[in-house]
Amino acid sequence: MGRTSTARERLLDSACELMHTRGYTAIGVAEICARADVRKGSFYHFFESKQSLTAEVVDTHWQAQRVAWRERLTGPGSALERLQRLIDWLVGAQREAWQVSGRVDGCLLGNLAVELSNQEPVVQQRLAAAFDEQAGLVHATLVEGAGDGSIAPAYADRATARAVVAHIEGAVLLAKLAGDLSSLDDLWPHVRRLVGSDPLPGDLSR
Amino acid sequence: MGRTSTARERLLDSACELMHTRGYTAIGVAEICARADVRKGSFYHFFESKQSLTAEVVDTHWQAQRVAWRERLTGPGSALERLQRLIDWLVGAQREAWQVSGRVDGCLLGNLAVELSNQEPVVQQRLAAAFDEQAGLVHATLVEGAGDGSIAPAYADRATARAVVAHIEGAVLLAKLAGDLSSLDDLWPHVRRLVGSDPLPGDLSR
Repeated sequence: MGRTSTARERLLDSACELMHTRGYTAIGVAEICARADVRKGSFYHFFESKQSLTAEVVDTHWQAQRVAWRERLTGPGSALERLQRLIDWLVGAQREAWQVSGRVDGCLLGNLAVELSNQEPVVQQRLAAAFDEQAGLVHATLVEGAGDGSIAPAYADRATARAVVAHIEGAVLLAKLAGDLSSLDDLWPHVRRLVGSDPLPGDLSR
Repeated sequence: MGRTSTARERLLDSACELMHTRGYTAIGVAEICARADVRKGSFYHFFESKQSLTAEVVDTHWQAQRVAWRERLTGPGSALERLQRLIDWLVGAQREAWQVSGRVDGCLLGNLAVELSNQEPVVQQRLAAAFDEQAGLVHATLVEGAGDGSIAPAYADRATARAVVAHIEGAVLLAKLAGDLSSLDDLWPHVRRLVGSDPLPGDLSR
């Protein structure tokens, strides 16, 4: 009873873990079911297809992430400090995952975005919505920064917010490729340049 | 005779085109052979495996790209102007590909990096080498910029060069996900911030 009632969640969790490491195409329904300890027949009771399961994986993952993003981007401190809190948390999450698995699996949403943008329109739409929300959360913080004086108003635009999200994805991509997270030490200093809050040259230690 | 002698190149070209659109895992040897009009038996005369073919696809693609990167990053103009020439060319190449296919397929090397970093060590090494070379070419340009006065010396470091490469990849990822290249209009202004050559706030039109 307990197992049956959690079968749906186990399928979502298993798909999330497997796809985070090896992507969408490489993972089949049979492997997801085996890892979740759910019979293949039951899979189609819960999900129409691997595609619809993946759309839910994206939603579930982003819903949890969204809470974490909001927590970091609100609360005490200037908007710039809160943006730094987000970046520190993202880098810390990559480190924690590395400590568990010994691999750099990168960003599940970014991985699926690269693999599925031209392949699976339903999943693509969910991913695009998640990244739009990320840019929206950063944009709101930049606007707050223009208000509290921690961000110059000229940088509190949507395009800059999108650039911050893009930069996170690109930096994680290169760290994943290198199998080495040390380059992410530079993520905050570089994001800071994008939002126009770079310390003066020659004072880069700040 | 003519067809036979070009079979190897046709296999490489076909794999490159198919993988650029749909990735590595989704493409099988049979489909590559069909598109190249080469019998499957002949495939293994030229390549040991799909993995070794893909390693050569990466090398071949990057060798052609490297020539283009070098052309833009050398020649007349300040180092900053040459860096802009590279970015303009990269964005233009995405637009040309879009005009041909109606899709945003993004960056072949970045796509394969996301998909294969933890899966195929031989391909991963070639990809890592290509991105290291990209960072090296940008770094050399930044150092020249510190010499010609177009880049502040504090920004002429390897980490900044790597950040430029990461930013290109992240921006292309988001454009691919959106199926829309218009956000790449901001790529140069944002790269310019990363290399510390942002126009003063309030003068963003420069």
